[in-house]
This record gives sequence, structure tokens and C-alpha cells, in this order.
Amino acid sequence: MNIKNLKVNITPFTGSKKTYKTGSIFKDIRVPFREISLSNGNQSNCVNNPNKAIELYDPSGPYTEENIKINIIKGLPKIRENWIKSREKNSTQMSLAKKGIITPEMEYAAIREEVSPKKVKDAIAKGEAIIPANINHPELEPMIIGREFLVKINSNIGNSALSSGIGEEVEKMIWSIRWGADTVMDLSTGKDIHETREWIIRNSPVPIGTVPIYQAVEKCNGIIEDLTWEAYRDVLIEQAKQGVDYFTIHAGVLKDYIKFAKERKLGIVSRGGAILAKWCTIHKKENFLYTHFEEICEIMRAYDICFSLGDGLRPGCIADSNDQSQFAELKTLGELTITAHKFDIQTMIEGPGHVPLNKIKENMDKQIELCNNAPFYTLGPLTTDISCGYDHITSSIGAAFIGWLGTAMLCYVTPKEHLGLPDREDVKQGIIAHKIAAHSADLAKDHPMALRWDNAMSDARRNFRWQDQFNLSLDPENARKLHNRDLTKEEQEKASFCSMCGPKFCSMKINQEANELSKRK
Amino acid sequence: MNIKNLKVNITPFTGSKKTYKTGSIFKDIRVPFREISLSNGNQSNCVNNPNKAIELYDPSGPYTEENIKINIIKGLPKIRENWIKSREKNSTQMSLAKKGIITPEMEYAAIREEVSPKKVKDAIAKGEAIIPANINHPELEPMIIGREFLVKINSNIGNSALSSGIGEEVEKMIWSIRWGADTVMDLSTGKDIHETREWIIRNSPVPIGTVPIYQAVEKCNGIIEDLTWEAYRDVLIEQAKQGVDYFTIHAGVLKDYIKFAKERKLGIVSRGGAILAKWCTIHKKENFLYTHFEEICEIMRAYDICFSLGDGLRPGCIADSNDQSQFAELKTLGELTITAHKFDIQTMIEGPGHVPLNKIKENMDKQIELCNNAPFYTLGPLTTDISCGYDHITSSIGAAFIGWLGTAMLCYVTPKEHLGLPDREDVKQGIIAHKIAAHSADLAKDHPMALRWDNAMSDARRNFRWQDQFNLSLDPENARKLHNRDLTKEEQEKASFCSMCGPKFCSMKINQEANELSKRK
Repeated sequence: MNIKNLKVNITPFTGSKKTYKTGSIFKDIRVPFREISLSNGNQSNCVNNPNKAIELYDPSGPYTEENIKINIIKGLPKIRENWIKSREKNSTQMSLAKKGIITPEMEYAAIREEVSPKKVKDAIAKGEAIIPANINHPELEPMIIGREFLVKINSNIGNSALSSGIGEEVEKMIWSIRWGADTVMDLSTGKDIHETREWIIRNSPVPIGTVPIYQAVEKCNGIIEDLTWEAYRDVLIEQAKQGVDYFTIHAGVLKDYIKFAKERKLGIVSRGGAILAKWCTIHKKENFLYTHFEEICEIMRAYDICFSLGDGLRPGCIADSNDQSQFAELKTLGELTITAHKFDIQTMIEGPGHVPLNKIKENMDKQIELCNNAPFYTLGPLTTDISCGYDHITSSIGAAFIGWLGTAMLCYVTPKEHLGLPDREDVKQGIIAHKIAAHSADLAKDHPMALRWDNAMSDARRNFRWQDQFNLSLDPENARKLHNRDLTKEEQEKASFCSMCGPKFCSMKINQEANELSKRK
Repeated sequence: MNIKNLKVNITPFTGSKKTYKTGSIFKDIRVPFREISLSNGNQSNCVNNPNKAIELYDPSGPYTEENIKINIIKGLPKIRENWIKSREKNSTQMSLAKKGIITPEMEYAAIREEVSPKKVKDAIAKGEAIIPANINHPELEPMIIGREFLVKINSNIGNSALSSGIGEEVEKMIWSIRWGADTVMDLSTGKDIHETREWIIRNSPVPIGTVPIYQAVEKCNGIIEDLTWEAYRDVLIEQAKQGVDYFTIHAGVLKDYIKFAKERKLGIVSRGGAILAKWCTIHKKENFLYTHFEEICEIMRAYDICFSLGDGLRPGCIADSNDQSQFAELKTLGELTITAHKFDIQTMIEGPGHVPLNKIKENMDKQIELCNNAPFYTLGPLTTDISCGYDHITSSIGAAFIGWLGTAMLCYVTPKEHLGLPDREDVKQGIIAHKIAAHSADLAKDHPMALRWDNAMSDARRNFRWQDQFNLSLDPENARKLHNRDLTKEEQEKASFCSMCGPKFCSMKINQEANELSKRK
């Protein structure tokens, strides 16, 4: 696929339209929401929806605008340009927050979350939340990641040596945010790494993360032995200049920890972790990301890039979970977080992996204890190893649980995990499963924005407002299709029942009849 | 589809064969297992698999035998016939267990679970587990449901007025157990209810459950007002004679509780619950299932049928969870359990429904406290209301969690939940999602049979034994298909990598190389 021929899906969701809220402090802020209009059914119980509409958090960017013209070649409008220009060199969201300054990015994120800008500023100052926003990514619609905010999800895209091209990857980014990805990581390890990333960033309204060691290895023609700090540093600067918003950096894979991982059933399953362990083994030296950590901080501060401290020693199977290697690394990540915070660099911590349900809480507890309150960002965790082809479901089970316990962002897993590179449909399935997990966590944390959505659905259900039910679903077209499959055209539109129970056995209908009866008597 | 033309899938899984273990006490017992043979890859770390094979629990019945001839018209072999003949009238598994007697059904279930027959007998005697096994279902392969055993899953099939015929439903039963359903409920509400059930039972190696009120309502031409105890009793006896193994009976929907449900957002979402609430409202009388509970016990004892005490007031949305109506009914179900146990009737308790993660534990705690240790059998719970079309995933999140906490059986939910009657593919998706949930719960409970399976997968993963990985997956063909999609024929067979990372970025491969290096030095 040639990038110039790229056709992106820019249709709004049926029944939804984009609305914007403006800032109180910064008047040029326009924060997007997805407004789902509700039909004129019986709304008697809809105390939450006096306007017959509901607003949802919306990471999908301009692509879901009605009648929008998108120019992929030109990239998205640079909405942050003026905000960034007005700031001094080396000021980060964290340094400003520590000085008590509310930035436009902070107010933007606060409006999205329906909280005060002060709450955002305080969380950033304390290191409890991050706004990933490279000064060279002016196209970004700012968002916040932290335990006190809506749980976010990340979608991984990127090519491998075996498959995919630039066009496919840009399309996967746009497709990802359509279904609800809050950030996107470009994990390309194949060809055209630089150019692929450029197209993605220029067209992305969400933060973009990368794992710079991949490109560093590519620059050494895949020969890990040839990796050097200097080569890595050059890649960091190259990507920083392009506008990457957060870097996964496996600085906690210490030389001394490698021996622990050898006792495991599956060893090291993180690509970055395996690369660094091999490098340390070959050179008999300490991990250069650890020894050069302060220099890395200086580069990242100059562009206000966030750390995502990588868990190179995460467990890759149930048998390896919560072991010595994993928690030794987590302790080091906690120490590095304190250093990063000293440099005013916003930081989150990556977490596992494969963990059975009974061992998940220990992960969250230790992360909170060791990591200076930095947000946790986990991959799943997957609660069993045996579900190849359905690992998006397994991951969403662990993710929902750890999200409830306090994890701020959930990295998705697709049905292709352990099997191959996800395609467009795999990406969608992975995102929807993890949106369910994140939303389940938000509900469990009593988030008012979450409960409002579920209540709107329940009201629609009670009143047989089928179109509203579809429009309120995570995937409106799929819900509509499944419902209509066994019904006639007329039944589809008007029926007070569905094919599951038929007209005589619909509990909702029997309820209504019983209520009518008891009113009459 | 005519039943005589029914073609059922009777192929074994690739790489698996059926094996049998015989009883120690009862020599005619032949308990099926699914044996997955493992290839001759590097097995050095395979301490659990000295025989290069692994045995799994197998509810799929004779249909996955190699070269088996199945005669749907004749039904399955009557393996329990002699065991049943030798027993006295009105003896139930529970009455025998209380007398210290181990039955063939108990030894059968014990072999499946790899525990002692005594453990099974003691659990049955105390009411902590049940073996649903109607004396008129001699085709049954006995299995046990209880907190101390493997977590089970149930698949709901059955037609509605709008769709499906007998052949489709028999096929859905066979399809359900192929993918791992441990019991099947026939919830037919459409035509040919009796005949559909007959075909299902005669061909089912797993317990069959029903909700007899559905057929009672059908007998009254759908007019709930016309329901009587006598009509219901006749249906109970008719189904008991056919061999139904457990009945869902909504005897806890008391007249006084109906007013609580009126304050809800969604009222009563259980079909049985809604029917009985309407009946009570019309007649201004107490629920006849409650007032005639002891007569029901007498009928069920005569056939050794189990109670599944229905939660007619389960919450149908997040907003209604853990409310007064739900817990009032649960208390009554606890009282009824004590009565049922006095009659030596094995009993389980049905549970919700829609419950956010933070409110699930209260459900399990209250059930244990109130229900005389009887097993809990939950529908999900679904942890959000907004995932129409993907509710199998949402349900598996809540199900995994409550299974870990002690729920003995998880009722599946399919992608068609809230939208329509599931078809064959929906059934499969629902089962696999809930197998993942049940297995995740088993792992969290440290069940040795569960961990053995995951370890076999991890060993296969470490050694790039791709075929073993596929065969060990819940859905081998799907795993194989996804993996092979982006690879050449040669790569498919032999590659030490997959298309996700390609050859240079495979962490497993880098691990191996680093280990080789450190050995050499």
C-alpha cells in the first residue's frame, strides 16, 4: 500500500456526533466528546439524560468528525503549536506543575475527565499521573494517565520483518483510536522504521510510544553485540525530534538479575529485555541504559517526553509469575523513577505479563509501594497460558482486575498474541476487549462518567429503544447486525422483544405487563 | 433440519486421542480423558510430561472418539443402567453419601478430578458438591460440581418461538460439549419442547438442566394468569421421567419481594422470575413454587434430580446489583436449601447477573454464609452493561473472578446476549470465553490439573514446538490458522519465530543464543 493512496475510515459512528467544550482558563482549547443522541422513547427514568443525549470521552480524533477532510500528507492541525512556543526550554508538564502552573494541556485533560484543572496539576506535580506530550508533537489532543483518572488502554502497532507496510500501520493507528485506543505504540522492527513513525505521529491525535532499542538494533543490522550507548543515544534523539511522546526504556534489566531469569521456565520474554540481557552477557558489563540513565533524562527533559520504564523481566508464563527476577527489576524501576522525577520527567512503570488471578494484587501493591506513586501500565496480565488465539479475552480478565486495583493504563493484547502480527481485525478485537476491561475497572472504582454510560444503556433496554442500545454499544454496527439477524424488517424496527426469548418469554415485556396490572388494580 | 438427516461433528481434535481410566472400586467404570501427545522436541524441562503426553479432563463424550459410529436415533450407550438398577427407590447420591456409601457415579467423578472417591462422597454428604444424575439419564458420564473441584461451565441452548428446530438444538449440544461445556441447559420456549428435549437427553453424556416453568407457560398457551400448581407439577414429572438432571426452580421469588424490584432501573430480568412475579401480582397469592416446595422435593427425590435454585431477582444491570431484592431472595434460597438437604436432594444456587467487579465478592460471601455450603452457579456476572455483541468477554471477566472466589459453575454468555438467540458460532465463542474464565479460576486456586496444562504449553513455547502449542490450545485449528497466516509453508513447520517479531526480534530465540553464549564462556 502506498501512503498516498491510503484510504482511511473517516465516518462518524451512527447516532453519534462530535461536540467540543472550550476551556475556562485557555479560551482556544476545544476538547472533543462523542455525543450519542437518544431517541424519543419513554425517558421517564432518565434522570441522567435530561437532554436526551449522552457525552462520552472520545480519543478518536478528527477522523470521526462529520464531513471532515483529512489530508494524510499534510498531517493533522497543530493545535498545541502556540502553547509550546510560549514556554521556556526544558520546561516539562511536571516542572510547571511543581511550580503551581496549570498548562493548556492540563486544562484540556481536565475537561476530558470532567475534573478540575487543579486536580490534574496536583497529580502531575506529585508524579501520580502523566500527560505524554512531546513538544514536537503539536498535533496531539492531550490526555492524562493516572490512578485517579479514567483507565486508559494502549494499542500496539508496527511492522515486523515479515509483514506490513507504512500505509497499513498508519491505517492501524487511525483504526485503533476509532475503537478507543488512548495511546498507540509503534513497535516497528521491520523496514522503514523512521518513515513509518513519521507518518504515524503527524497524523496521530493520541500520544505515540516507542521502544527505541528496536531501532538501535536495526541500525546495528540486528547484531546485538554491536550495540553501543552512542548508537542508542542517536536513536533517542532522532525519535525525540520526531515527536514520540513516551519511550519504553528497559533500564531495570541489571546484569545481576539475568541469573534469576535463567531459572525460569520461559526465561526473558520481553524483546527489549532479551536484547539487553544478551548484550550484558556478551560484554560482561552493566546495562548501558542504567549506567547512562541521567543522560537519558536530560534528552527526555528537553522534549518533555515521558518514561515508560520497561519491565524487561516480566513473567511470560504462569509458572514464572511474581518471581525474584520480576520483583528485583521492579525495585530498580522504583529507584529510577525517583531519579526521573528529580529531572521533572513524567514517568510510568510497565508491568506484566502472565499472572494468575491470585497473584495480581501483589503486583499492584508492590508497584505502589516501590515506585513513588507513578502510574502503572500493564500488559494484560494474562491469567492463563493456554488460550492461544483468544488471548485478548484472557488478557482482558487480568486487565479488568488490575485496572480496578489501580493500574492506570492497560496495554491491549490481540487474538494474534503468541501467534503472529495482528491485522486490522485483530487490532479491533484487542481494543474492544480491553475497552471492556478498562470500563469495568472504572465502574468498579465508581467513576461517575462510567456509570452514566451504563445507566443510559439500561434505560434504553427497559424501554426497548433498540437503536439507542446499538448506538450506546462499544461497536454499534456489530450489535445492530447481531440483533437483526433473525428478525423481519418490521420486527427489527419496532419489536418489544428479540429472537433470544421471542414475544411471550421476554422478561422486560412481562415486567411491563405486571406493572400495568398492579397500577390498574 | 430433520433429525434423521442430522450430521454431527464426530472428529477428534488434531493431536489428541481419547483414553480411558478404569475404576478401583467399580471395575466397569471407564472414565474418558483427552490425551494430547507432545512431539519429540527438546523436553529437557518437561518434568511433568515424562510420557510426552498430557491428559486433560474431557466432557466431550464419545463424539470425539476416533472412528466412532454414532447413532443419534438410538442414543448413546446406557453406561449407568446397571448401577441404577441395583439401587433402592428414593435413594439419591446424597442419601447414599450420608450413609457413607460410595456410588459408581462418585468414583467416576473422582477419577475425572484426580481425587479420592472419599473426597467426593464427603462433599456430596455435606451438600458442598453435587453430581447431577437423573436415574432416567443412564447415558450420562457423571461429573461433580463443587467449590473443591474443577470449575465447570454451562452452555444454554434451546429454541425460541422465532428460531431454530430440533436438529439444530441437538447439534448445539454436541457442539457445546466439544468445546468444553460441562453441563447443558435446554431453555427451549418454542415449539416441540418435549421432543427437542428427548433427543437432547438421549444423546447427551453431560447433565441436562431445564427451567420447567417455560414448558408450563407454553402448556397454558403463554397465558401466565392460567398457570396452576397442578399444571406445573405435571410438567415437572414429565421432564423428570425423561431424565432431566437438574431443574432451575424460582422458588425464592416471594410476593413480598416484588415491590423491591419495582424500585429498580431494570426490574426483573429473569424470565422465570418475571413470570412468577406476574402470577403473584395477578392472583395476589404467594409463589406456588414456594408454597409447594416440599411436594417438589418429593418428586425430585424419586428421580434423584438436583435443584438449581433460580435467582429470579438477579440484577439485570450494574445499577441494580447487590440490592435488597437480590439479597432477600438469596436468603430465602438458603432456607430452601436446608429443606432440600433434609430431603437428601442435591442443590446448587444460581447467582447473578450484572455486577461490577467491586461488588462481586459480597455475592460470594453472602452465598457461602446463607446457603448451607451448597455450590454457587452464576451467570457471568457481567461487569458492565455497554458491551452488546461482546458480552461473552464481559461475562468471562466477572466469571473468572467469582470462580476464583469459590463459584463452582459458570453459566456462559454468548456474543448474542441481549440481542438474540445464539447460533452455532456464538455458542462456541461463549464456551471458549468461559473455559478461559473457569481455567483462570482453577489456576488461581492452585489446582494441580490446571497448572500442568499451562506448564505443558510453556514448555512447548520455549522449544518452538508449534504443533504442540496449537494442540494444547483451547481451539487448536484456530491457533494453527492464525499462526500460519503470514508465513511460508516452510516457516510454518520449522521456524524458530513467528510473524509478530520476525527472526531478529524473537525474545525466545535471543534467550537461547544468550544462554549458549554464557555456557561457552
